[in-house]
Amino acid sequence: MNMTFLQEMFNNITQRDALLRRRHGYNTNPDHADLVGACRALLESDGEASSIALASRALAMYERLDGSERRRFFARLAEEFAADPTRIDQAYAAYSESRDNATLNGLFEACEPRRQELFRRLNLASDGTYQLVRMREDLLALRREHPELAGIDADFAHLFASWFNRGFLMLKRIDWNTPASLLERIIHYEAVHEIHDWNDLRRRLDTRDRRCFAFFHPAIGDEPLIFVEVALCKGLPDHIQPILAGEDSDVEAPEDADTAAFFGISNCQTGLRGISFGNFLIKQVVQELKQELPQLKHFVTLSPVPGFAQWLKAQRDDDSTSEAQREALAALDEPGWHRDPERAEALKAVVRPMAARYLTQEKNDRGLPLNPVARFHLGNGAELHRINWLGDISDKGLEQAAGLMVNYLYVLNDIERNHENYTANATVACSSEVRDLARKARKQQAKGELK
Amino acid sequence: MNMTFLQEMFNNITQRDALLRRRHGYNTNPDHADLVGACRALLESDGEASSIALASRALAMYERLDGSERRRFFARLAEEFAADPTRIDQAYAAYSESRDNATLNGLFEACEPRRQELFRRLNLASDGTYQLVRMREDLLALRREHPELAGIDADFAHLFASWFNRGFLMLKRIDWNTPASLLERIIHYEAVHEIHDWNDLRRRLDTRDRRCFAFFHPAIGDEPLIFVEVALCKGLPDHIQPILAGEDSDVEAPEDADTAAFFGISNCQTGLRGISFGNFLIKQVVQELKQELPQLKHFVTLSPVPGFAQWLKAQRDDDSTSEAQREALAALDEPGWHRDPERAEALKAVVRPMAARYLTQEKNDRGLPLNPVARFHLGNGAELHRINWLGDISDKGLEQAAGLMVNYLYVLNDIERNHENYTANATVACSSEVRDLARKARKQQAKGELK
Amino acid sequence: MNMTFLQEMFNNITQRDALLRRRHGYNTNPDHADLVGACRALLESDGEASSIALASRALAMYERLDGSERRRFFARLAEEFAADPTRIDQAYAAYSESRDNATLNGLFEACEPRRQELFRRLNLASDGTYQLVRMREDLLALRREHPELAGIDADFAHLFASWFNRGFLMLKRIDWNTPASLLERIIHYEAVHEIHDWNDLRRRLDTRDRRCFAFFHPAIGDEPLIFVEVALCKGLPDHIQPILAGEDSDVEAPEDADTAAFFGISNCQTGLRGISFGNFLIKQVVQELKQELPQLKHFVTLSPVPGFAQWLKAQRDDDSTSEAQREALAALDEPGWHRDPERAEALKAVVRPMAARYLTQEKNDRGLPLNPVARFHLGNGAELHRINWLGDISDKGLEQAAGLMVNYLYVLNDIERNHENYTANATVACSSEVRDLARKARKQQAKGELK
Amino acid sequence: MNMTFLQEMFNNITQRDALLRRRHGYNTNPDHADLVGACRALLESDGEASSIALASRALAMYERLDGSERRRFFARLAEEFAADPTRIDQAYAAYSESRDNATLNGLFEACEPRRQELFRRLNLASDGTYQLVRMREDLLALRREHPELAGIDADFAHLFASWFNRGFLMLKRIDWNTPASLLERIIHYEAVHEIHDWNDLRRRLDTRDRRCFAFFHPAIGDEPLIFVEVALCKGLPDHIQPILAGEDSDVEAPEDADTAAFFGISNCQTGLRGISFGNFLIKQVVQELKQELPQLKHFVTLSPVPGFAQWLKAQRDDDSTSEAQREALAALDEPGWHRDPERAEALKAVVRPMAARYLTQEKNDRGLPLNPVARFHLGNGAELHRINWLGDISDKGLEQAAGLMVNYLYVLNDIERNHENYTANATVACSSEVRDLARKARKQQAKGELK
Repeated sequence: MNMTFLQEMFNNITQRDALLRRRHGYNTNPDHADLVGACRALLESDGEASSIALASRALAMYERLDGSERRRFFARLAEEFAADPTRIDQAYAAYSESRDNATLNGLFEACEPRRQELFRRLNLASDGTYQLVRMREDLLALRREHPELAGIDADFAHLFASWFNRGFLMLKRIDWNTPASLLERIIHYEAVHEIHDWNDLRRRLDTRDRRCFAFFHPAIGDEPLIFVEVALCKGLPDHIQPILAGEDSDVEAPEDADTAAFFGISNCQTGLRGISFGNFLIKQVVQELKQELPQLKHFVTLSPVPGFAQWLKAQRDDDSTSEAQREALAALDEPGWHRDPERAEALKAVVRPMAARYLTQEKNDRGLPLNPVARFHLGNGAELHRINWLGDISDKGLEQAAGLMVNYLYVLNDIERNHENYTANATVACSSEVRDLARKARKQQAKGELK
Repeated sequence: MNMTFLQEMFNNITQRDALLRRRHGYNTNPDHADLVGACRALLESDGEASSIALASRALAMYERLDGSERRRFFARLAEEFAADPTRIDQAYAAYSESRDNATLNGLFEACEPRRQELFRRLNLASDGTYQLVRMREDLLALRREHPELAGIDADFAHLFASWFNRGFLMLKRIDWNTPASLLERIIHYEAVHEIHDWNDLRRRLDTRDRRCFAFFHPAIGDEPLIFVEVALCKGLPDHIQPILAGEDSDVEAPEDADTAAFFGISNCQTGLRGISFGNFLIKQVVQELKQELPQLKHFVTLSPVPGFAQWLKAQRDDDSTSEAQREALAALDEPGWHRDPERAEALKAVVRPMAARYLTQEKNDRGLPLNPVARFHLGNGAELHRINWLGDISDKGLEQAAGLMVNYLYVLNDIERNHENYTANATVACSSEVRDLARKARKQQAKGELK
Repeated sequence: MNMTFLQEMFNNITQRDALLRRRHGYNTNPDHADLVGACRALLESDGEASSIALASRALAMYERLDGSERRRFFARLAEEFAADPTRIDQAYAAYSESRDNATLNGLFEACEPRRQELFRRLNLASDGTYQLVRMREDLLALRREHPELAGIDADFAHLFASWFNRGFLMLKRIDWNTPASLLERIIHYEAVHEIHDWNDLRRRLDTRDRRCFAFFHPAIGDEPLIFVEVALCKGLPDHIQPILAGEDSDVEAPEDADTAAFFGISNCQTGLRGISFGNFLIKQVVQELKQELPQLKHFVTLSPVPGFAQWLKAQRDDDSTSEAQREALAALDEPGWHRDPERAEALKAVVRPMAARYLTQEKNDRGLPLNPVARFHLGNGAELHRINWLGDISDKGLEQAAGLMVNYLYVLNDIERNHENYTANATVACSSEVRDLARKARKQQAKGELK
Repeated sequence: MNMTFLQEMFNNITQRDALLRRRHGYNTNPDHADLVGACRALLESDGEASSIALASRALAMYERLDGSERRRFFARLAEEFAADPTRIDQAYAAYSESRDNATLNGLFEACEPRRQELFRRLNLASDGTYQLVRMREDLLALRREHPELAGIDADFAHLFASWFNRGFLMLKRIDWNTPASLLERIIHYEAVHEIHDWNDLRRRLDTRDRRCFAFFHPAIGDEPLIFVEVALCKGLPDHIQPILAGEDSDVEAPEDADTAAFFGISNCQTGLRGISFGNFLIKQVVQELKQELPQLKHFVTLSPVPGFAQWLKAQRDDDSTSEAQREALAALDEPGWHRDPERAEALKAVVRPMAARYLTQEKNDRGLPLNPVARFHLGNGAELHRINWLGDISDKGLEQAAGLMVNYLYVLNDIERNHENYTANATVACSSEVRDLARKARKQQAKGELK
């Protein structure tokens, strides 16, 4: 009765649709073929009166497909929604003759996969953007086993890079006055250090020395894209547990702090993988904090070292590792080693140097650091500043990084230079302390001397 | 002193810049060559740390260029920021061999003009989106005389179609509680019936029987993209002057109205020409109004007929026009004819039929109606409903349309069909009254009989 | 450094204060005498430049007093901040001579207790209103044992009735999009059916068939004054447990519901006892719901019956109770009786009639119903509609009301009449079903026949 | 059809009302007697179910009364809604016997004029607060000629002082982004220097060196209570015309200013006369500005001197005025004197000293400065800092103050002391320059020497 105009139009279309179905003996649950048909109809519509309704219909169908039907739909997208080879050949012929902008535009249009126009039109539907992000999430899960779907992903990535341009993102502060529905999502999406419940969240957010900021996109409403948690401290923090526990810090008022420590950065939307905002987020948050608290001097992370424990394990079997190192590392096998001060001290003398080596010298096949967190912050222009022994003694921290955490330091005047050196020469900016540690690792390796 | 982080980074870059300038003897006012250099630097940056600053710098330079320098800059954009022919040739070779998605993506990337990536990066700057829209405004002004710039415009259009996707637009109601800064823009942008001052605006907006809605884009803040003015009436209105004067209507409460009359639709951003939102705007406004006032029965425009007077003039010299018609039309040459009831009545008998013929039968080279307003509403699925004699007796109304105005009617159940018939067969949906008028025009032409 | 103007003024005053203290050998912890001094200073200030600072100082002192010092402070307020008897005598003499408005005003001013002006001035402090509400909370706790403080309470009540005038209250909807800090208060203040944690809250609020509204006062920000929880149902609900559990109702969309059931009304501020908003809240919420969901037909409560079990116990020893009734009621002593269908059925036949009698015929010394919840809703014009057997089988429900709950029905056309009959003649409006039950109770009493 | 609950209740009551009217032969236009009846009904209702409706009805009746009926209504209020003498006598008897808080409260209640309870109940109506403010506006207009209405005004004043307590006021910034409907009110209410139209307003508000703040009360929505206009300057301004014209100042960015000049303070609600917020407004605005622009050093007004010209005229006939002074002052009679530099200079030598004398030494019957603006700022703790020759050369400025304007300076550390000296001893804080001028005035008077 109170039905809206667009709903009515949608109903009109759906009714006709239902009619067609009945005539042609379609069953009521759509399958991938129905969706392919709906997509064709959307592409053939001339983008005006009915596109919104057609887009909504197609997305609603997708929603109802199960996993295998979705896979089949993607396969059809890959095969049938590419571009017209004949048209490309003609456009190329024209281009290679005149080599001007007009024919270039012609060629560009001819070889744009029809999927891109399809996605643009699906985006007309209300909430379309978010549904497309989730559609890509499905696709990414399939991609590993179905490399033939890579082409579709390239189309998503091309459009998302435009749609999620930093100029369209909005930074919002998250705190205890934020709507519960959004905080619930923060609890859900926290990826670095799990938030167990509302009390846990309150401990992290609702003190005068905490800040949290997230990026949002206007078309996907209250769904955060990425967020960062910050603790205001005196001096650079070296242990994560007191921060997570919300223990009384020595910072009574925000104005007392000299350091902003970024202790958790979480991407929220798997479907936006590869569309990077983390770098912009950190820098915009630094700006916000500077504005609020001009006395802040240090901007630093307290970051995990995922993959280090695995690498360390591999080293124990490696020829280059000295006997002394190997013996020392054996202590890691004994549960609870970190609670035994003597044992821990002995390990520290071997593990920190090896971590310095791991982070500064171990490279992947593109010549960049093996550790992904290091790649992220070094690429942003930060400096690898300090390796913190027993920085994270949670089960997860012990398991993935032998309890280590790292401070990456963002020094205003060095960011540009660090960044340029990193991208041009893969140079890892690090403090002299870290450099000395890495040197010590080499010595231990060579001479078998520890300490 | 309170300078922000990003400003500082910007200053760092600008200082280096200034240094370079001095070394190389540049003068302080940038020219198109400086800007081309800045654009290259932006494209070469790897999109991370310094891109925002570089983008801001380039846009600031553009801002300071004068008209001829801007033209030179566009010329360079056209010539030097297309795509790499060798890379295209290679990509095409690969594609023509395998014809798969991977090589198609390769070709698509190779032939995307570098301008597109440039514009995407300029868009990183704060307020970049709006500055790009204004840059295209400049370009459109030059395009007529410089057809070689058409390629750049295609790149703008391609990106803007993505960025200004309807899914990203926000509808807001405009009324007397709207911030003055925004109302000022409404006064400025009104294109159909000029708003003279604040009192004039108040008459149009601030009564219970008026509504105004605009589309906004989150990245360009308070700048409206397009807006529509609505009067709530009893019955379909046929004269614009009482509406503009805010004369007491017989609609005491909005709940009394049965008709929503769209009496002005104004595009605000020249730089977004061809990126169409008007259709979506009308339909979303219909939806809003239905929600607020479920009793509304008719959604109709009161639209101008630009170009009709000019066409009419040409008819007077045309062979097909009968002597009787010609004689009647001569009255139009006498100033003030519309205030003379007898003369006006005689004219009406000739002019309205000819207008019906003009609107329904005169076509452009694409086979669509000659009149642009008719094309817009018929394309949206509306029906050409009534031709109103002396509908607009302002100087402008008399001059451009012999005082005529037209009602286009949006009938929910017909929109789809009308639209499809129009796009498929260029069929003009019209009321029987208009059809009869057009028939009468033919008779008058043939037999020379008036009335 | 960034200290604000008013803070500086406050500091100036506090420094002078500190100086005075040191001179006069005061210790650093204020006692009631210090506070009395601060109150005098505030009353003697001429209400302009320094009043805000003086008010803040006095409230800060009060905050630091412990319970016994606060009691002493109230005692001093009672004794020393009344009115000047001589001035009253003179004003009365003048009044009794001329009996005009001028001398009446004089008398009124003379006998206004100075406490009222004191409280008005304390209210100048930022957050003063809320601190005064909490001050009265302390006072009410003391009042029972210290009847001499009743005078102060009258002053609070007089002012609060003005300040918390319904015209100043703001109704806000509470839902899952409400800031967490406010929801936390809702959890805290819920007085009828305890909310255990955030998941419990979510079940009550975050479904399409739930609503929650609260009154706020602009000067005390996010502290709710009173709130009501509503469930949208088909038909009048008779059991509270499914509602609290958020069990799937048969109301799929809010538009399906025909009934709004108020299942919890909680006053949040003890310090506002006696300042009644509950009546206005219910009526304004009815209005809001009608606006949103015009199809709603019934507005009803599902209310507890506190005190009934106690009364019932007393009846068992009362001569008027028949032997048969007494025997039946004995079953209530056996734990878990409500899970034994046979026993429960037997009890039902006795207990419901007695509840009807209790609610309609048992009166307090003002001739009004003994049950406070009944007094509230009957006073608002509702009708005692139905007595629900095993309506609340929680421990609390069994303990306070033998598991009974009551529906009070708000019938638009009867509210006025019910209300008038109630206030004029203490008439209890009730359904014929309840009336029949009460009659049956009398019969059972008289004849000893059950059923 | 969509009628709301409270409306329906209101209609119910009004229908009964209409019935009564017809029965008793009332005419349809209410007169003061009807309103008195409605007020009685409201007072007799027990404040619950129907009070809101009864209050709305009474206020709607008042709205429809013409001036003379309103006067009659006030007369009835004065006569019939005072207090019950017998009850007062009894309460006084009880009080004079026991002299305790209980009997004091009894007396206080007995002698509270029933008007106060009436106004509190009228305030239940939606928008009641604002309507009561306007009702007092009417009353104030009548009071001069009808001193017998003073008693009613005392009741209004008593309640308004509670309702408009500073703790309930909200400060909002007004600028070009403020809703037009509110800006329109600012144009309307500006009392010091008239705002002619929207362009004029824009010049005053919409530059980086302007600020405007207003106090609002939550219950009267968008109606401002008082507002102040501020110009940010370098140094203390001495002329108003450049400020009003929005002339380019030497303040390019707000951060460049060292002075905030308050150049217009306008009370908006005549009905709130005597309920003072100006003092709080100035101090809260100083605080806001300090927060935004910590570099500001001076807070000063540029104020008119209403009444000075009139006083000056009287002096010309006064014996104490020397012949030389008299001769000089004669130049004031010649129109355009301020445009003649020589004449103006001669006048300046006489008029400024006399102004200093007028402002510092001429007292009213309460021993306070004759000039109301001086009383206001001196009472707030400001210092009379400078007398500016030709500070306001508008017609109004010339007419009321011979073109003079005055700077009152708010010096943080002196405000308290100035204020205390002023209230205790009526001491006028002034700069040595002003003191010297006043001394010169005495000399000129005595010796007849000018200069």
